[in-house]
Amino acid sequence: MPSISHRGQAMPVSPFRKLLPFADAAKQAGKVVYPLNIGQPDVLTPPEMMEAVRNADIKVLGYGPGAGSDSYRHKLAAYYQRAGIPAEYEHIMVTTAGSEAILFAMLTCLNPGDEVIVAEPFYGTYTAFAIAAGVNIVAVTSHIEDGFALPPLADFEAIITERTRAILICNPSNPTGYVYRRDELEALLGLCIRHDLYLLSDEAYREYCYDGATSTSVLSLAGSEPYAVVLDTVSKRYSACGARVGAFVTRNPDVWQAAFHFGQMRICPPTLEMIAAEAAADLPPSYFDGTRAEYQARRDLMVARLRAMPGVTCPVPGGAFYVVARLPVDDAEKFGQWLLEEFTLDNQTLMLSPANGFYHTPGLGIQEVRIAYVINRTDLAAAMTCLEVALREYPGRTLHLAGAAAVEAAQPFAS
Amino acid sequence: MPSISHRGQAMPVSPFRKLLPFADAAKQAGKVVYPLNIGQPDVLTPPEMMEAVRNADIKVLGYGPGAGSDSYRHKLAAYYQRAGIPAEYEHIMVTTAGSEAILFAMLTCLNPGDEVIVAEPFYGTYTAFAIAAGVNIVAVTSHIEDGFALPPLADFEAIITERTRAILICNPSNPTGYVYRRDELEALLGLCIRHDLYLLSDEAYREYCYDGATSTSVLSLAGSEPYAVVLDTVSKRYSACGARVGAFVTRNPDVWQAAFHFGQMRICPPTLEMIAAEAAADLPPSYFDGTRAEYQARRDLMVARLRAMPGVTCPVPGGAFYVVARLPVDDAEKFGQWLLEEFTLDNQTLMLSPANGFYHTPGLGIQEVRIAYVINRTDLAAAMTCLEVALREYPGRTLHLAGAAAVEAAQPFAS
Repeated sequence: MPSISHRGQAMPVSPFRKLLPFADAAKQAGKVVYPLNIGQPDVLTPPEMMEAVRNADIKVLGYGPGAGSDSYRHKLAAYYQRAGIPAEYEHIMVTTAGSEAILFAMLTCLNPGDEVIVAEPFYGTYTAFAIAAGVNIVAVTSHIEDGFALPPLADFEAIITERTRAILICNPSNPTGYVYRRDELEALLGLCIRHDLYLLSDEAYREYCYDGATSTSVLSLAGSEPYAVVLDTVSKRYSACGARVGAFVTRNPDVWQAAFHFGQMRICPPTLEMIAAEAAADLPPSYFDGTRAEYQARRDLMVARLRAMPGVTCPVPGGAFYVVARLPVDDAEKFGQWLLEEFTLDNQTLMLSPANGFYHTPGLGIQEVRIAYVINRTDLAAAMTCLEVALREYPGRTLHLAGAAAVEAAQPFAS
Repeated sequence: MPSISHRGQAMPVSPFRKLLPFADAAKQAGKVVYPLNIGQPDVLTPPEMMEAVRNADIKVLGYGPGAGSDSYRHKLAAYYQRAGIPAEYEHIMVTTAGSEAILFAMLTCLNPGDEVIVAEPFYGTYTAFAIAAGVNIVAVTSHIEDGFALPPLADFEAIITERTRAILICNPSNPTGYVYRRDELEALLGLCIRHDLYLLSDEAYREYCYDGATSTSVLSLAGSEPYAVVLDTVSKRYSACGARVGAFVTRNPDVWQAAFHFGQMRICPPTLEMIAAEAAADLPPSYFDGTRAEYQARRDLMVARLRAMPGVTCPVPGGAFYVVARLPVDDAEKFGQWLLEEFTLDNQTLMLSPANGFYHTPGLGIQEVRIAYVINRTDLAAAMTCLEVALREYPGRTLHLAGAAAVEAAQPFAS
């Protein structure tokens, strides 16, 4: 029997889905399982999107242009410009979700064996794309103690080799919620200019920054044109994860052209969902206000509840809709499985993403989890109550009453 | 400025699109251009597909399962079984078009540097996928003189090396229209078994076989389970090229699982278009009768017209909706450009695909073109009249009246 390729064997199991079989079993057993493991918002998709598809008069559902329809690219350019991002029609290639933008960036910017530096913890799926593209991720570690801020530039400098071709960031960050400041991004760009590296920026959560903050696109940095590539998607922006429409945006015409050839390979992005995305691109900036306020209220609720739990370390994420928290448990993956298999509070439990799947360095994040605040506040509060009780009951808990006060005192964010 | 990756630089321009700028200019100049270059059928998409999308009650357009929705996979299994193909729910992974199935097959079955054997001329885009996946295509040549039949097994044996991992066929073939006989497929499978190779079969045109013939899926061959992978799509089957929904189908559970990990990487296929595809899967086999009859009538018209043109060699394609013909011209690409830039008959001209883009071996197919019969018969007839006149006027024509009779006599299919 022929064998599976090495890359096929190396492909990781999605960290969001690792615990799925246990969650399925828990649901089968009649438990209510709060899904805090995956960034699938409950926010309604703008009705304009489905309405546009319903109204489309399509007799032959034919191929579209490889870079996306002209009308959508023009509207997307207008959307970027409203957001203060200098992206024009010719800088935009529509992709099949953000996923394809990530893959095309790796295929276009890196040779097999080349290295891309990513600050960990990072969106675990980057690892899968790197394996598919034959490139190596090299991680610099950010730390929960300072809210997962950009690590010192010296940490990046220290791991740059002759094979380094790019730095990849996610801003606002999945999983940490960290929002990069403009001066941090300028410093990163300076590093990229000095070392001739691409600066790839996954900006899927652009609109979701809290406390009045806004995120900065790498495309808006002076001098970024040759280096910056934005990887984008409508998935989170409009709560339309099932519409597989994203974008690869760069002001470097050679990079655009090369990525476009990969786009021609797969002929075109999904036609119907691009119609939906085009309708969304017409929504005014005010559309985001309601959703942002809701996410901020959820974040506030969740952070307050987590910080009130003895032994839990939890930064205040400035954006996206995730928090990475450190729990007083021996192993967050075991704890996550125990929550689904053993635990119940009034027949309820919750599903978390163990954060080790977001770290590249083995052994990091063992006590950490990523929690997505993508369910309504009533359910979120109920889930937090489950977590609080579970942390007292879990056999592998590491906090004992005697030590609780000391741990809490050592927590830098206790307020 | 950072450089483009080698694979980015190596990506070929789509052979169907090479002449597009000239076609655009011709249209701008007011000419009618018959599009025979791309497999974009004019056949109406079944209204059931758009109807299903219109009727879908979607409040949150969320992520779907990585392998496609359960309901669609079950209906697709029923479709395969009606077609005599032993594929069950668990053998099917829904992909984002046939394109993704091809990419996942290369990523799953081959390591970088491994070789896949393909009979040329072949669907030019395979080359792009091979470059993206870092694998090497090795070609065996099929010949217009015998209608592009499967080359002798000895030709395959001669180029098998220790790096060979797979044989990839397209059946019925794009671009040649050749339909592999069951005994040919059995021989190929035997070769794969002897040399431990995957047998990858692109069966996008399964339903479109003519003169009462049917196509055979590699999945239906006895003993094929460990070796056979079918790459499928709804694009041509239902004239729904813009619905980016395909399938990766194998009875080898290890291969399925590895491909599924690539599927998890991109999270899920397009949700709305999968709903459309599911509605199509419910269509009875009789749905294909009308479309098949129309394509056969077009094929008959086109082959008759081409064979009546002096110096043209044209096999009778048994399936798909293409023909590869040899024209009495110095260079089919130059001729194709001349048709768009210089030629006009009553303000009409046509667009062809030069066949050199379908050959892997440099220098082959220089006089050949692929013509897609995807427009109505009236237009097809008008396009053939244009071609006939153009072949008499083209400055680079190679047929002169004195030699015409001799060339015709040498044509093995003259009837």
